[in-house]
Amino acid sequence: MADKIRLAHGGGGVLMRELIEEQIGPALGGLPQELPDAAPIPHADGFVMTTDSFVVKPLFFKGGDIGSLAVHGTINDLAVSGAQPLALSLALIIEEGLDIDELKKVLRSTGDAVHECGIRIITGDTKVVARGEADELFINTAGVGKIIKNVSSTFVQEGDCVLINGSIAEHGIAVMSSREGLRFDTPIASDSASIWPLVKALLDEDIEIHAMRDPTRGGLAACCVEIADAAGCSIELEEKSIPIRAEVVAACEMLGLDPLMVANEGKLVAFLPKSDAQKAVNILHKLPNGENAVIIGHVIGRKPKSVYLQTRWGGRRIIEMPYGEELPRIC
Amino acid sequence: MADKIRLAHGGGGVLMRELIEEQIGPALGGLPQELPDAAPIPHADGFVMTTDSFVVKPLFFKGGDIGSLAVHGTINDLAVSGAQPLALSLALIIEEGLDIDELKKVLRSTGDAVHECGIRIITGDTKVVARGEADELFINTAGVGKIIKNVSSTFVQEGDCVLINGSIAEHGIAVMSSREGLRFDTPIASDSASIWPLVKALLDEDIEIHAMRDPTRGGLAACCVEIADAAGCSIELEEKSIPIRAEVVAACEMLGLDPLMVANEGKLVAFLPKSDAQKAVNILHKLPNGENAVIIGHVIGRKPKSVYLQTRWGGRRIIEMPYGEELPRIC
Repeated sequence: MADKIRLAHGGGGVLMRELIEEQIGPALGGLPQELPDAAPIPHADGFVMTTDSFVVKPLFFKGGDIGSLAVHGTINDLAVSGAQPLALSLALIIEEGLDIDELKKVLRSTGDAVHECGIRIITGDTKVVARGEADELFINTAGVGKIIKNVSSTFVQEGDCVLINGSIAEHGIAVMSSREGLRFDTPIASDSASIWPLVKALLDEDIEIHAMRDPTRGGLAACCVEIADAAGCSIELEEKSIPIRAEVVAACEMLGLDPLMVANEGKLVAFLPKSDAQKAVNILHKLPNGENAVIIGHVIGRKPKSVYLQTRWGGRRIIEMPYGEELPRIC
Repeated sequence: MADKIRLAHGGGGVLMRELIEEQIGPALGGLPQELPDAAPIPHADGFVMTTDSFVVKPLFFKGGDIGSLAVHGTINDLAVSGAQPLALSLALIIEEGLDIDELKKVLRSTGDAVHECGIRIITGDTKVVARGEADELFINTAGVGKIIKNVSSTFVQEGDCVLINGSIAEHGIAVMSSREGLRFDTPIASDSASIWPLVKALLDEDIEIHAMRDPTRGGLAACCVEIADAAGCSIELEEKSIPIRAEVVAACEMLGLDPLMVANEGKLVAFLPKSDAQKAVNILHKLPNGENAVIIGHVIGRKPKSVYLQTRWGGRRIIEMPYGEELPRIC
């Protein structure tokens, strides 16, 4: 029997990476060695491009919806590439029967999100498929940005600090809760937000940044493993420093999820020299969505390319790339 | 009861236009007055961007597949904007259970198509949804191009010739035939192809071009009505000049379709001054996919913004914007 695509192939983990590196890349005639969040556009010096499709279910969840998510997701891919977002495209695949009022609600939220980010949707596309051939609404956004600062996982060095702007795992848990109808005493909202204002503030203040990531599918774990792999270094994270809300810990325990592997949609993970790290934290503390910025770990050496977690109890465990089976359709 | 999205909202006709102008645009906070195939990127002088999602069914059809179509569709949107294609993004939404071999076949064809067009896929995304939540595979491509020649429907003038590079309605009929298992004595293949080489040849030879379109969904009819509307002019097409293969005429009669409203995916419709028209035809005649180039009509005045067809029998009928119900999922 021929191999089939599994849900886990879309999870942002090991299986997805294998699919991309072993099947998609070779079939397309080869991919670049590093797969950055946004890629340089040939013959357009200083400009980069990125794309993301969004299939999140349900369309509306606490803290956002598929429209705002589609804006933030693509803007954040540009931001962590050191690029100022310039414009987005918006392509809709709509299932026949979708309420036009629902669609308008999503689009108003999309419009509000781009407006808040100070950019525009400049081009679009609309397709409709019959009932049962899609699930309500899928959105693709592609974005173009202008490089302000060259960053790359290969710039990461021994001694670099790992900075995050706030608490983890909220987006994945918020979507799961909405989908499964789970209720918590304190409702968990998605962290979906543009991180460009944070990146811009750091660059405006001449903070030296080596690499940035937004820890979406696969969470903080996937993002750090990818950086360690690409940079050829080891990273040590301190569990007690990683911000996480108590109700998110509780929800993860209940759902059997490792919060390090749960998606975020408004988080910036930056790798930067120790000399600039505290200044960066101070800058972020003054900004919305940066109040809880903190150093959560360090780059401890160039081998053996592992990510370690110093646990609260003094232990040390290896963080591995998630396999991919955690949470389908959270973005 | 709330209004619902209908299949016809995706047909490239009146209903889609209403959806975009009355619902999508206002909800997003406004759209530009002219909706070109590719739009200028703010703060990126001379660069344009476009996007298209592809939901064609079946994935493989005579003359192409969803992969090559996704490349040609987006490249052609750049080409008719007078822009040299620079790079594409590729985003996949895959239904769980798709054969990985099928996926690789599509991707090889995608890779071959971009290679043939002399560009690259520079960034991508992969999502997987459960069985029944999509239909095998949807592809989004976005493209960035560099403007070589400013063209606009507002540049179209009385006296302009309407040029097409070959015979119409083949893509829609090829997809329908594959989907419905129709067989013809002479099989009808999609015309799916990049038209950038044709546009480039015309621009290289300094042909003055006012406006260009690729007549996809809604066919030649929708494309001419849009131009007439935007330019505030009338257009007269000559039925006897419009190239169409006999087997396509027969298939359209059988299926009850007006070939003027059936999608093309490798056709260039150019509006240009009479003084350059014959030279343009001669240039295209020497190129693959341009051998049957011909003048099919003229711009006859600035009012009343109608498109007329001079029929073979000497009559004159008004060509209207298709409503949208013709052919679902042909691109």
